[in-house]
Amino acid sequence: MPKEKEFVKEITPQSEDFSRWYIDVIRKADLMDYAPVRGCIVFKPDGYELWEACQRELDQRFKATGHRNAYFPLFIPESFFEKEKEHVEGFNPELPWVTEAGGEKLEERLAVRPTSETIIGHMYAQWIQSYRDLPVLINQWANVVRWEKRTLPFLRTSEFLWQEGHTAHATEDEARAETMQMLDVYTDFVEKVLAIPVYRGQKTPLEKFAGAVDTYSIEAMMKDGKALQAGTSHYLGQNFSRSFNIQFLDRDNTLKFAYTTSWGMSTRILGALIMVHGDDRGLVLPPRIAPTQVVVIPIGPQKERERVVGHARDLHRRLVAAGLRVRIDDREDFSPGWKFNEYEMRGIPVRLELGPRDLDAAQVVLVRRDTGEKIPVPEGELFNRLPALLDEIQANLYQMALAFRQANEHVAESFDQLTDIIQNQRGFVLAGWCGDDACEKAVKEACGATSRNIPFDPPTRLDHCVVCGKPAAHSVWFAKSY
Amino acid sequence: MPKEKEFVKEITPQSEDFSRWYIDVIRKADLMDYAPVRGCIVFKPDGYELWEACQRELDQRFKATGHRNAYFPLFIPESFFEKEKEHVEGFNPELPWVTEAGGEKLEERLAVRPTSETIIGHMYAQWIQSYRDLPVLINQWANVVRWEKRTLPFLRTSEFLWQEGHTAHATEDEARAETMQMLDVYTDFVEKVLAIPVYRGQKTPLEKFAGAVDTYSIEAMMKDGKALQAGTSHYLGQNFSRSFNIQFLDRDNTLKFAYTTSWGMSTRILGALIMVHGDDRGLVLPPRIAPTQVVVIPIGPQKERERVVGHARDLHRRLVAAGLRVRIDDREDFSPGWKFNEYEMRGIPVRLELGPRDLDAAQVVLVRRDTGEKIPVPEGELFNRLPALLDEIQANLYQMALAFRQANEHVAESFDQLTDIIQNQRGFVLAGWCGDDACEKAVKEACGATSRNIPFDPPTRLDHCVVCGKPAAHSVWFAKSY
Repeated sequence: MPKEKEFVKEITPQSEDFSRWYIDVIRKADLMDYAPVRGCIVFKPDGYELWEACQRELDQRFKATGHRNAYFPLFIPESFFEKEKEHVEGFNPELPWVTEAGGEKLEERLAVRPTSETIIGHMYAQWIQSYRDLPVLINQWANVVRWEKRTLPFLRTSEFLWQEGHTAHATEDEARAETMQMLDVYTDFVEKVLAIPVYRGQKTPLEKFAGAVDTYSIEAMMKDGKALQAGTSHYLGQNFSRSFNIQFLDRDNTLKFAYTTSWGMSTRILGALIMVHGDDRGLVLPPRIAPTQVVVIPIGPQKERERVVGHARDLHRRLVAAGLRVRIDDREDFSPGWKFNEYEMRGIPVRLELGPRDLDAAQVVLVRRDTGEKIPVPEGELFNRLPALLDEIQANLYQMALAFRQANEHVAESFDQLTDIIQNQRGFVLAGWCGDDACEKAVKEACGATSRNIPFDPPTRLDHCVVCGKPAAHSVWFAKSY
Repeated sequence: MPKEKEFVKEITPQSEDFSRWYIDVIRKADLMDYAPVRGCIVFKPDGYELWEACQRELDQRFKATGHRNAYFPLFIPESFFEKEKEHVEGFNPELPWVTEAGGEKLEERLAVRPTSETIIGHMYAQWIQSYRDLPVLINQWANVVRWEKRTLPFLRTSEFLWQEGHTAHATEDEARAETMQMLDVYTDFVEKVLAIPVYRGQKTPLEKFAGAVDTYSIEAMMKDGKALQAGTSHYLGQNFSRSFNIQFLDRDNTLKFAYTTSWGMSTRILGALIMVHGDDRGLVLPPRIAPTQVVVIPIGPQKERERVVGHARDLHRRLVAAGLRVRIDDREDFSPGWKFNEYEMRGIPVRLELGPRDLDAAQVVLVRRDTGEKIPVPEGELFNRLPALLDEIQANLYQMALAFRQANEHVAESFDQLTDIIQNQRGFVLAGWCGDDACEKAVKEACGATSRNIPFDPPTRLDHCVVCGKPAAHSVWFAKSY
């Protein structure tokens, strides 16, 4: 019989060291392992399964909004990067280069893609001739590489998985509408499925995507108060269409450059999922994304085992047939206590306990992962109660995350107040900003916080720049970030 | 109004030049485009959609047989390849190397993965300690790169998409059973879903996977008689577990090396799908894999348009609700004739025509892509008839492919006969083989045919080697191949 591990005791408490808590949880929940390549991780089955669940949810939303998937090459010729000046400056320091292949030195170095605007722009230039070819609405699921100096599992790794949407349109209005539509799609997925409230807004020029006209983001607050950029949608204007010559003959018989967009969400979203809902006992997964929503655990003495396990298996089968994602753990060589800890650590939303006395009373006991509440439920009501309970848990997780966020939102009227909050408290700070890069940089230098975004609906509007005191052009969220 | 293209006339007939026919079809059906990177292609939405359909079918079969997905790094340190001698010799000539990243020269070169046995072996060595950790049953969906000298869209490209399963087991028996199980999974998918009959068998030592003990394959015959290896399953024995030190403490308390397998199917299967079923009018897609199974085309004069299109849209909605994959093309600025050609070229299994007279007669006309047959069907019977018709088409495509294959199977008793058939006819040739590499090589040198596999159930057994005349150890399929 394997040694029973006391998993819970092995997780560093969040209050003691949040970063260690994070690493402890993802290791113990078996989501990933470090790879023998600098800054790379292995997505183990339980971690990859979470990404597959995200993929399914996002993919159906992309298709419902008229997008189709395609696949473009991993390698991008060096000359392609040179065509968009801002883009090359932004990405050059992080590129890995293939210089030899098939036993020969290459004439032109090939970058391993950090993002695909350039190679996709090159292809679109050939596919788009007329207004009739527009819009082009394509998404790609792919691996990308950015040679990061400091890495952290899921949040920042040299190679990561993501989707990148790339669209081309005949008009600015249409491209801008697409940009906002995809920000809405991300918001819907992150708030409704992952139960994570987000701040929606526009990135400042310093923080926007290299080559974009405007970048919009959704920003989430982790339990340590730091920000995580969960998804971005870029209006690229005609920047890439001019660089790659994506021209079309419009209805008025004149040649025009197309308006393009791109938008992406990556495996870093798994980091947000973990750091928004997790607690000192481990992962906490919202029911809508959880690969397993309910784990059935038969309990009781050996002499009752056959009766209890038989019934538990029958329940398991019927719950699966009812469309729930249910697992059973009826192994004999692990104690119920060990299993309780194990599945709490893995974040499964509901534990269904079933013992001899429950059987006699024709009931089961449901235990919520989010609140720990134990709920005896008559078996006759289980098939109604369980889906409702999962909805309650989903809603509660969102509300808890929202309450945490609200408790850690601040407003700063002065520079001292801003840096004081960032250094001595946790959370996001809203402050007025004149629009000058220099003022934004001053904040970062003083306290390490960056502008997260200019929210569409700020809780309040500030009238002067927190740095220079000039009239504020915007109210901006500042925070330390992942 | 766009110029109506006579697509059909633009496809080179198969009998004139099969290779040109292939390229014509995949370009005109808009499945791919050439990329600006040597030997790479872009999977356009219609091509990628076919791969997504293959992924869905395979993924559910992998999961049903207990496998889970994971993701391992794209980059493999050079030293990893050195650990398995045969493996490095097999793959070294095709590797692209990353030598610089993040602005610095790397201390150790990183290969872009051509396959992942080495890096996965390295990880398994850390995950597997005890017999309780076995079996490990993992699959990965990924891009891989092999710097091929001669490339052909889908069939052989520098970068391609695939799945690679990697499993580890406590015993040889279990690992061998896994190897065969996955060959069965591939067979089931290719024969039942893609309607392609395959020869199942074992690769000769010369043709096996670099590092495997035994390689098994399924081989399909294209319409030009050439072979295409559609999937392979490798029994790796303890080769990789010894190289990467995948050891476990067994029940008997002794340390043992695990037995591993790997198995893969790639986007080259799309090439098989096209070259087995396609004809001079374009693609022919089996209903079970076709992203669109039925296209609804309203026809008739302008004055009847409103009535006909309204009814066609209603039918379309009801067919989709019935679970069929149906599209409607009710565009006004393309003629019915243009649409007929277009969707025949794209291989959609059934066209549903609906005109004013059909409406008056409460019927529709179904047109089969495989036979061209026109079938008037009373509307009341449509919802029963259509699924049955799709099944008939699926079965017919398999039967047609099987008949073609049978018509192009040969048996050679002598070397002259073998080379004569290979050079002057088309198809596969079964011949006796003593087991000697030299004899196998002699065939290749004389006529360009390679051994495809040693079939499990050869149609006949030959008693002497077709080259040296010694007693035959096996009957082997020889063919030219993609």
